[in-house]
Amino acid sequence: MIKVTIWNEFRHEKSSERVKAIYPNGLHAAIKEYLDTDEELEVRLSALDDEDQGLPDEVLNDTDVLLWWGHMAHKEVNDELVDKIQTRVYMGKMGFIALHSAHYSKPFRKLIGTSGNLSWGRDQKEIMWNLMPSHPIAAGIPDHFILESEELYSEPFAIGQPDALVFGGWFEDGHIMRSGACFIRGAGRIFYFQPGHEYCRSYYNPYVLRIIKNAIYWAKPCEPGYEIINDAPHITEPIINEFNNL
Amino acid sequence: MIKVTIWNEFRHEKSSERVKAIYPNGLHAAIKEYLDTDEELEVRLSALDDEDQGLPDEVLNDTDVLLWWGHMAHKEVNDELVDKIQTRVYMGKMGFIALHSAHYSKPFRKLIGTSGNLSWGRDQKEIMWNLMPSHPIAAGIPDHFILESEELYSEPFAIGQPDALVFGGWFEDGHIMRSGACFIRGAGRIFYFQPGHEYCRSYYNPYVLRIIKNAIYWAKPCEPGYEIINDAPHITEPIINEFNNL
Amino acid sequence: MIKVTIWNEFRHEKSSERVKAIYPNGLHAAIKEYLDTDEELEVRLSALDDEDQGLPDEVLNDTDVLLWWGHMAHKEVNDELVDKIQTRVYMGKMGFIALHSAHYSKPFRKLIGTSGNLSWGRDQKEIMWNLMPSHPIAAGIPDHFILESEELYSEPFAIGQPDALVFGGWFEDGHIMRSGACFIRGAGRIFYFQPGHEYCRSYYNPYVLRIIKNAIYWAKPCEPGYEIINDAPHITEPIINEFNNL
Amino acid sequence: MIKVTIWNEFRHEKSSERVKAIYPNGLHAAIKEYLDTDEELEVRLSALDDEDQGLPDEVLNDTDVLLWWGHMAHKEVNDELVDKIQTRVYMGKMGFIALHSAHYSKPFRKLIGTSGNLSWGRDQKEIMWNLMPSHPIAAGIPDHFILESEELYSEPFAIGQPDALVFGGWFEDGHIMRSGACFIRGAGRIFYFQPGHEYCRSYYNPYVLRIIKNAIYWAKPCEPGYEIINDAPHITEPIINEFNNL
Repeated sequence: MIKVTIWNEFRHEKSSERVKAIYPNGLHAAIKEYLDTDEELEVRLSALDDEDQGLPDEVLNDTDVLLWWGHMAHKEVNDELVDKIQTRVYMGKMGFIALHSAHYSKPFRKLIGTSGNLSWGRDQKEIMWNLMPSHPIAAGIPDHFILESEELYSEPFAIGQPDALVFGGWFEDGHIMRSGACFIRGAGRIFYFQPGHEYCRSYYNPYVLRIIKNAIYWAKPCEPGYEIINDAPHITEPIINEFNNL
Repeated sequence: MIKVTIWNEFRHEKSSERVKAIYPNGLHAAIKEYLDTDEELEVRLSALDDEDQGLPDEVLNDTDVLLWWGHMAHKEVNDELVDKIQTRVYMGKMGFIALHSAHYSKPFRKLIGTSGNLSWGRDQKEIMWNLMPSHPIAAGIPDHFILESEELYSEPFAIGQPDALVFGGWFEDGHIMRSGACFIRGAGRIFYFQPGHEYCRSYYNPYVLRIIKNAIYWAKPCEPGYEIINDAPHITEPIINEFNNL
Repeated sequence: MIKVTIWNEFRHEKSSERVKAIYPNGLHAAIKEYLDTDEELEVRLSALDDEDQGLPDEVLNDTDVLLWWGHMAHKEVNDELVDKIQTRVYMGKMGFIALHSAHYSKPFRKLIGTSGNLSWGRDQKEIMWNLMPSHPIAAGIPDHFILESEELYSEPFAIGQPDALVFGGWFEDGHIMRSGACFIRGAGRIFYFQPGHEYCRSYYNPYVLRIIKNAIYWAKPCEPGYEIINDAPHITEPIINEFNNL
Repeated sequence: MIKVTIWNEFRHEKSSERVKAIYPNGLHAAIKEYLDTDEELEVRLSALDDEDQGLPDEVLNDTDVLLWWGHMAHKEVNDELVDKIQTRVYMGKMGFIALHSAHYSKPFRKLIGTSGNLSWGRDQKEIMWNLMPSHPIAAGIPDHFILESEELYSEPFAIGQPDALVFGGWFEDGHIMRSGACFIRGAGRIFYFQPGHEYCRSYYNPYVLRIIKNAIYWAKPCEPGYEIINDAPHITEPIINEFNNL
């Protein structure tokens, strides 16, 4: 059983009729509906305007993989919460999946070590290319699939060199994007995935949903992680002495 | 169900009483005994002196992950068989795990693009360090474990830069080794793991066995792989035309 | 001084009036003309139909970086020559740059460990994106530049995961391509660069030329390389004994 | 000409007679003395207790590569200064080299996205192994070299997976360390190098010094970097329109 929390800023869906028409219960609810069909996943919803910004300790510390969608209110997220997320991810207790405009969210920027910057423009046609057909996040995904409309997200994307580049996006206006990228930080696993503009229907696309599910399985913590993360340990007994105890 | 074939040169165990005393049925049998406790794995044994060098098409084409141990008879392996293994791995139909002296085997060298060279010396104490506690191949493995005796395998190891470095070996005489390394080639996943000298007991070590099992799960093929591998396709219909069919 | 040899199949320029009109002295000569403006580079031309397929030992062993363009005659290249190239690159004595259709050449396939397969189609507009503005191969290159016409080369490209992805290509028909990719194999450095169809004028584009020059500097050998490559050395004196000699 | 600033906490050299005896003018001065022999480098010294913590804007903005050594006073470094360093590095205006205990410095941790944690212990023998003989940072370095005494720094080291692992350290007590590691973040290049305990003489070792010099050349900025880093740009004119201007 993997415990998944989908954190959504959940403002656009309330303030915009156009967004509400697409995702009446929030885009996180659309993702949850799909994930709930997998019995191995236990999925919770969480929102910025919930108590403790949706992530009180009892929720955060009970989450194996945290999905994050934010856009207009990145700055409102408490720095203390970001620190807690970072520590939990670096310790290998929780994976993190940044969705669409979360490229510019506080936790993504701090986790990865990036400004999060990219170029962006009008909604348009996108073709998503599968660059690593052997990667577990690409399981079941054909060599490409198409999205009728997505917000233009373009290179330059200030992520340096990801640990694996699984998907690349082609946009009608002449742009490309490293759209699906894996990062290892500390003992934590982080995935960025570009589709998901609030005005588009990407979270109903079966391939987008499958990729998100695959990413949850990829990012879930593997024991033992780093117990050391909050305490750089002083070694007083040389490891080599262990041979004497065999 | 993952179909695993453990290919063993299986000569030392017949020619050396000392090796036979350690692995009476072959070192592949020792690995199989452990893997058989996992119901998800269906494990076959295969040896160089079997018919078709142990890998007739009906076996090879029914194998999801191939483990390979060879040493004194690398040159006897048929080039045609190596080509078949390479194609199957590059297509993403089969993972490949190279054990110990298989660093110098024909399939490993051809798959990876390496001479396979390393330095080597007398049997001695080894400490294996876990460098990526979040990697699935490191699941359940502590930050280090010790092997009372292993053959010295040392850098320089001519593997360039692996796609992930999961384990590093410390040797008593002052050497280190990139001992557990992942490679992506085509749509195939390949893992090299250093312990396993025929005169040592490493294939009875619970951590060594767990790592091998983890590696099998990591290397198993994910659909769809590359169907194109034997035929670089000419595109006669632009992908962009697919938008018209929506 | 870096000694550069540009190896060209040099058949299309003789058999096709259309190609000859673009590259009257061969496409390798167009590249040489640009490189000759750099006093640090000493550039030789070499062709398949020259003696010893253009690479007698005295030339090969005097080459720091080998550029390779081949297309219709990949199969004619001698396997012995390919083996010599591979050994020299793996030893860290020579860098290798594969241009355009050399993705399917014998040396590229053997060096990298790849089938070399990709998809391809009609000539069309391409936009080249700079994905790693800090990479030395991207020095002086803006965030993107455009090529009026190039042959469509598309993903899936069976190169697994390159060690660095510096450029990505956008094609008019809806395709993308990992167009500029770095590989480390043994102690050798290899760069693949996609533009250069014989019917297009890419080898007159100043950015394409600059990238090729940058790649030469990046791929040039750094001492000491691997002396061990042809001889896996047996260690008879533990490294640790060196402390006694201090 | 590369403008180098060596920032040193410069406290141990004043408070400890033992350290002062080794590095009478500070360890940064020992490094400078070596670097000054290279006419391409213009080297400045800088210390925590200097005005503006040694890095007023006119110095920081005139630095191509910043070396950083800190230990007992990490917490005293101003967060505003760390932010300025981070921005300059991510923009590709400045490389960053973290020396020894700077693994736990504010700028390293923030730049990389790491807690910086590792294990540590008593001073002892170290053997440094060259894992990437083709890497520019390894130019001129043999397959290994030895340090009579260094502080034990050991795995687990919470850096996830570096973009290149150039050196690995072997320690007498049974430990290994990823001792020389490259990171790409934004358009910036960062190198961590483990030797340099204040009680040891590593900054007089010719190989250690050569590696630091090589790292400066590797980390120096390449134009154009990311101009976008402080401003995610809105694209109002499709790139594809540029074809009309050809």
